[in-house]
Amino acid sequence: MRNSRRGAVDPFIVMDVMEAARQAEEAGRHIIHMEVGQPGTAAPEAARKALTEAMTQDAMGYTVALGLPALRARIAQLYGEWYNVDLDPARVIVTPGSSGAFLLAFSALFDAGERVAIGAPGYPSYRQILKALSLQPLDVQTAPQNRLQPVPEDLRALDFEGLMVASPANPTGTMLNKDAMGALIDLCRDKEAAFISDEIYHGIEYEAKAVTALELTDECYVINSFSKYFSMTGWRVGWMVVPEDHVRKVERLAQNMFICAPHASQVAALAAMDCHDELEANMAVYRANRTLMAEGLPKAGFTKFAPPDGAFYFYVDVRDFTNDSRTFAREILEEAGVAVTPGLDFDPVRGHQTLRFSYARSTQDMEDGLARLQKFMAARGFV
Amino acid sequence: MRNSRRGAVDPFIVMDVMEAARQAEEAGRHIIHMEVGQPGTAAPEAARKALTEAMTQDAMGYTVALGLPALRARIAQLYGEWYNVDLDPARVIVTPGSSGAFLLAFSALFDAGERVAIGAPGYPSYRQILKALSLQPLDVQTAPQNRLQPVPEDLRALDFEGLMVASPANPTGTMLNKDAMGALIDLCRDKEAAFISDEIYHGIEYEAKAVTALELTDECYVINSFSKYFSMTGWRVGWMVVPEDHVRKVERLAQNMFICAPHASQVAALAAMDCHDELEANMAVYRANRTLMAEGLPKAGFTKFAPPDGAFYFYVDVRDFTNDSRTFAREILEEAGVAVTPGLDFDPVRGHQTLRFSYARSTQDMEDGLARLQKFMAARGFV
Repeated sequence: MRNSRRGAVDPFIVMDVMEAARQAEEAGRHIIHMEVGQPGTAAPEAARKALTEAMTQDAMGYTVALGLPALRARIAQLYGEWYNVDLDPARVIVTPGSSGAFLLAFSALFDAGERVAIGAPGYPSYRQILKALSLQPLDVQTAPQNRLQPVPEDLRALDFEGLMVASPANPTGTMLNKDAMGALIDLCRDKEAAFISDEIYHGIEYEAKAVTALELTDECYVINSFSKYFSMTGWRVGWMVVPEDHVRKVERLAQNMFICAPHASQVAALAAMDCHDELEANMAVYRANRTLMAEGLPKAGFTKFAPPDGAFYFYVDVRDFTNDSRTFAREILEEAGVAVTPGLDFDPVRGHQTLRFSYARSTQDMEDGLARLQKFMAARGFV
Repeated sequence: MRNSRRGAVDPFIVMDVMEAARQAEEAGRHIIHMEVGQPGTAAPEAARKALTEAMTQDAMGYTVALGLPALRARIAQLYGEWYNVDLDPARVIVTPGSSGAFLLAFSALFDAGERVAIGAPGYPSYRQILKALSLQPLDVQTAPQNRLQPVPEDLRALDFEGLMVASPANPTGTMLNKDAMGALIDLCRDKEAAFISDEIYHGIEYEAKAVTALELTDECYVINSFSKYFSMTGWRVGWMVVPEDHVRKVERLAQNMFICAPHASQVAALAAMDCHDELEANMAVYRANRTLMAEGLPKAGFTKFAPPDGAFYFYVDVRDFTNDSRTFAREILEEAGVAVTPGLDFDPVRGHQTLRFSYARSTQDMEDGLARLQKFMAARGFV
């Protein structure tokens, strides 16, 4: 049977790591999960309760394509609370996760063959979704001195129709401050390129509040999700903010491509937004884990990283130990019982010399994992 | 800000009808809903209960991209129960509704610019999703004597890379029997075109069991959903069956485009599959409504239709009364208080002379709606 070329996308390497970890556990081993990109916690209790109640009262059919009006209004309110930005709820589009938002944004903004610049390292699905939509991902190698975030100098000589940034970024956790983001927005304006800001890790930040692109311009697409701070990965619900004159177009695309985001997830998400205490308790765990990791990783010989401003990852340069991060990750899993992600998912060019360590699980797990890593690296003579 | 050409898709006209109906209700009028494409019933009780329980025991994070193994196995089992087809669960991919399945199928099978034939009238989103993915929808005008289903003679002279059929179809409810579907599959084989079978209305059939393409070939994509028979529209969960050698490719696309279908919806869907009595009670309502409509529509002057084999629609030729179905539908809403869908959503060429009547709501609603339609048409002198 026939096949498309554009559909031949790369797999997530982390999925292979997860499968290897699962097999090890099935064989009776105890594995510490530093490979996962999601919280170990459930959706807030009040969110689950709201859904249980709604299911007794409502048929839970399709919602309108843009999402439940109350949820759109509550999301707009969040921009006031978090950033002091006055946002019209009419510009908020509820999506099936940030994944759905990427599909909508790329279809609304770009035609086949057009180029979208993305920073490397970066979230692997950007590249694969662009490819599946017959677009050209343009990998921009970011510099360590810029904390692996793109800067105008990396982009000025390139031709592209869109730029996608992420702050805090996956896998590095580094952020763009207002000046840095503003410089990229200005560059896009000069080049008549669309500016897309992936803000999925907002809320999970440590020293400074993350900056939303909406503080700087209305001429952008902003993508966010309930997956990370609100601890609702499996619910597949997120949102996107678009310029006022793009709402109708994106609505039509959403009607046809998705009909709507899952109704049940929208109900749960609305309630989750008021679960401040529970969400801040999750944050306290991330904060403690981050401190542990920042101290413990160097003790294991992992010293080359920028401390994360947000999210729950450390992205570590391991060139002193290996030139094959995939094999190195496999050895760490097999010998130390710690699952970590090789950098090749995030940076096809330089990722053979990097690893991503996630600290999204419990503090006890992080303590145990660090001890195992220290023992593993000591046995190799690296510390 | 920039815009794509491919993203400029058409709106669902039915959405405008629904909005007009909502406004009429807000103004205090009582409206009968014959425009909706979804059951009025909730997900089966045991499905909701299973989810409520699961939420107390599981963090409900991401599932694997192909879906919960137990759900994939249960779906495979359904093919034995419904069609006596022995299906390997490894070929079943759980998707975010049939919408997600369309996106996966079209990306996996076709490159930008390729042509996919679809019957007109047909589900409007086929056309719009194809366009958003830079593909060319090829509208095939079907004939009344073929009950508005495509036949090889409609297609032989055309060039295309794929054919999408739906049986039972929306908006007509007509089906392809084994011979008719087999002839289309043979034609696609000769043309080296992909054959995609939309089977979303399976289970909702009246005289004969619907035929799945899997009874005839493994070289096809079959798309189905929990939305209709299982009464779970808002949950956004469906499935796709692909050839064995396409599973890995579609898995990679699904990992990147969706990560997974909503976890909560997968849990509910698995339980829904064993809710035989409740689902058959829904079917009894559809069956009674279909009989009422088949008798009542002609009494209102609506005589030109093929009785539906499945689904919950009558698609009626109204050329004797109007050449502007949109205006006619608006008048029916305003004067009779019945919301119906103009055919232009389904057939841009001939839809100005057709209407779709849905009978997915309660039998009492259908009785009242028919009485209102009869009065409206009598007042116009049409009966």
